Amino acid sequence: MPDASTRDAEIIAVGSEMLTSQRLDTNSLFITDQLNALGVEVRRKLIVGDDRAILAAAVRHALAHVNLVVVTGGLGPTEDDLTREAVAQALDRPLVFSQELSDAIEERFRRRGRRMAANNRRQAMLVEGAEALPNPNGTAVGQWIDQGIAAPDGRVIMLLPGPPGELKPMFLSECVPRLASRLPAQVIRARLYRVTGMTESDLDQLIAPVYSKFVNPATTILASPGDIQVDLRARCDTEDEAERLLAEVGGPIEELLGDRIFSCNGDSLEAVVGQLLRARGATLAVAESCTGGLIAERVTSIPGSSDYFFGGFIVYSNRMKENLLGIDPALIERHGAVSEEVARAMAQCTRSRAGATYAVSTTGEAGPESSSGTPVGTVYLGFAGPDGAVEALKFTYPGDRTRIRLFAAQGALDYLRRRILGRQRR
Amino acid sequence: MPDASTRDAEIIAVGSEMLTSQRLDTNSLFITDQLNALGVEVRRKLIVGDDRAILAAAVRHALAHVNLVVVTGGLGPTEDDLTREAVAQALDRPLVFSQELSDAIEERFRRRGRRMAANNRRQAMLVEGAEALPNPNGTAVGQWIDQGIAAPDGRVIMLLPGPPGELKPMFLSECVPRLASRLPAQVIRARLYRVTGMTESDLDQLIAPVYSKFVNPATTILASPGDIQVDLRARCDTEDEAERLLAEVGGPIEELLGDRIFSCNGDSLEAVVGQLLRARGATLAVAESCTGGLIAERVTSIPGSSDYFFGGFIVYSNRMKENLLGIDPALIERHGAVSEEVARAMAQCTRSRAGATYAVSTTGEAGPESSSGTPVGTVYLGFAGPDGAVEALKFTYPGDRTRIRLFAAQGALDYLRRRILGRQRR
Repeated sequence: MPDASTRDAEIIAVGSEMLTSQRLDTNSLFITDQLNALGVEVRRKLIVGDDRAILAAAVRHALAHVNLVVVTGGLGPTEDDLTREAVAQALDRPLVFSQELSDAIEERFRRRGRRMAANNRRQAMLVEGAEALPNPNGTAVGQWIDQGIAAPDGRVIMLLPGPPGELKPMFLSECVPRLASRLPAQVIRARLYRVTGMTESDLDQLIAPVYSKFVNPATTILASPGDIQVDLRARCDTEDEAERLLAEVGGPIEELLGDRIFSCNGDSLEAVVGQLLRARGATLAVAESCTGGLIAERVTSIPGSSDYFFGGFIVYSNRMKENLLGIDPALIERHGAVSEEVARAMAQCTRSRAGATYAVSTTGEAGPESSSGTPVGTVYLGFAGPDGAVEALKFTYPGDRTRIRLFAAQGALDYLRRRILGRQRR
Repeated sequence: MPDASTRDAEIIAVGSEMLTSQRLDTNSLFITDQLNALGVEVRRKLIVGDDRAILAAAVRHALAHVNLVVVTGGLGPTEDDLTREAVAQALDRPLVFSQELSDAIEERFRRRGRRMAANNRRQAMLVEGAEALPNPNGTAVGQWIDQGIAAPDGRVIMLLPGPPGELKPMFLSECVPRLASRLPAQVIRARLYRVTGMTESDLDQLIAPVYSKFVNPATTILASPGDIQVDLRARCDTEDEAERLLAEVGGPIEELLGDRIFSCNGDSLEAVVGQLLRARGATLAVAESCTGGLIAERVTSIPGSSDYFFGGFIVYSNRMKENLLGIDPALIERHGAVSEEVARAMAQCTRSRAGATYAVSTTGEAGPESSSGTPVGTVYLGFAGPDGAVEALKFTYPGDRTRIRLFAAQGALDYLRRRILGRQRR
């Protein structure tokens, strides 16, 4: 069997809820990312319900085609949790009761002042030959069934709990080291550019002539409102070679995109703005109308943001704009709440009331209907900074209420980033 | 074969991008919803890359297990688009060139003033015996391969384009009517309760004795921070019977959960609170510290929220709490910013400054580190309402910064809901 196939994986997610119209299997994104970093490719992803026969058949099929099978979910204590039984059936091995595991689960309950229910004993059943993977975050232990993955016909089957808060730490601390020690070394290095201020198709037209000449690194482009991610991923025998390839493709891309790139390592815009403020000892306050708190929510999602974020005003009514921010009612009367003048006044009043270095503001029509006569999608972003700088920009964003709000929040944060860096406004 | 299995389906999504760590197959949610409404259950969902052998094997496997196979993606014009070839191979049928389809595709290009590329001829290849499904939104026609689904051993295979904007209209206008006319009539009715203020395991312990007696309706429980969804889904020959079954299970569940149910139709808590405010002609303002704008962002995500939402204060620093809200610095000095007293003062000052009927406030330690000495996860929610009502509650939320903020925002909105309804606080 060629080397490539010792690096093929299938992920099987177990749980009837993921076969409804409301729930997706998202664990596989994390697992894929981790496996890719080890040079392992995911060949198939399968989602099955809590059905022992279907799951056993799926595991058998996967074992016939790939070397690495990751099964997530179905390790709970209830009758519905059938992963242990199904995998034992697929491997034609018995389940073995582990007194040690059972004691550990009982102890876990005791520490919380509760008694272990009888059905938790099911969680102490291991597939014969399996190694138990401890779960510090729950009662469902994982299982590692190793048939020698480095050997040509070797296989590894992992059983992992479904809740992301249990699966992720277990995968990182138990599975990644085991895989890394068993797989021949290969290096994957990535660069993740994040870009704003242009459309996905404009971006692609600009940089496709660069990246399309290369199969390695692989280039993936993903777009969400105001935030396009360009992912370069090089897979090589050595780190030096991978970095050299990334520079060869990344260099020209950086030149073409310029300061529309706000991050070269995948950091979010709120993280980048936070770093800029912190490095300058500067502070921020915001005044939000159409974004309704979205900017503040993003800024404060960063741990430690209280060092540079003073707070802000959500001024959804004109009365709030006048009473709280101290905006002249005549200004609103004359220009309308959705106007360049009001955006400027919002930023200026916010900066001075909060005593911050910078302030940004938003006022616009997010829809679905326009209350001001201004077309839906029209947004004014305001900025105030040191040395009396007060300005505003007009944007027209596409899409529905949700997208317009996302675009506007992203636009305001990028406006701030550019002004802190002293770049011209767009 | 029993009736049930003529209603079993598998969805196969084709596309290497869905095997990366950044992209999920979301078409299956739409397709599942549509199939469920026709009484069809999705048994497996599979995602494979642009690989003919893997796809052909997958289609063959699906045909051996379910009556309805939906293949999405891989119908484009490029070499990578292999769904036609793979399905033909799985069915052991040839591909047949359709001059009629080729002419239609060419005409489509002509209308846009462009010439059809040679590789678009691939899109005029039909699996022998397949019916072409027109695509008004692109060049990729769908294919419907019918082996008589109503017959005991009948099968239907559908090939559909991957882009949602092409797939969805095609599924609605071409596939749903064909399926509806071929499947015996069946009705599905659902109730979606949303519950807050208790853990998933406490909820399950309470209501499992009710729902576990019933296979129909099927019950699914899904939890996210402060928001547990209980989905009942009845499948019957008539609407009356389905509603009767839902009432038989839903009635006792409603009694057991009481006002911890905030919605019986799936509405979000911010939508429910908005409806309550609107119905009373009441208004709201908020003051957020640890939630940093999350409450305001949720309230204003509802179209028309400007009718009842005045706005709010994000008071991330003590200085903002004092200067903007007018909270007595001595109060903060004496009790600390994270305290019942400050939560109360924040709500009271916000209500009077904004001139709103109600105000809610949050102050707490979201982590990752505590800046006040109070343990991470400690949150005080404040409330102020008519007749001088000013109060606060202390909560201890589990998890990381993100979860604590989600719990706190949900807790504050639920606190408001209960007080508007005149319920006792918890």
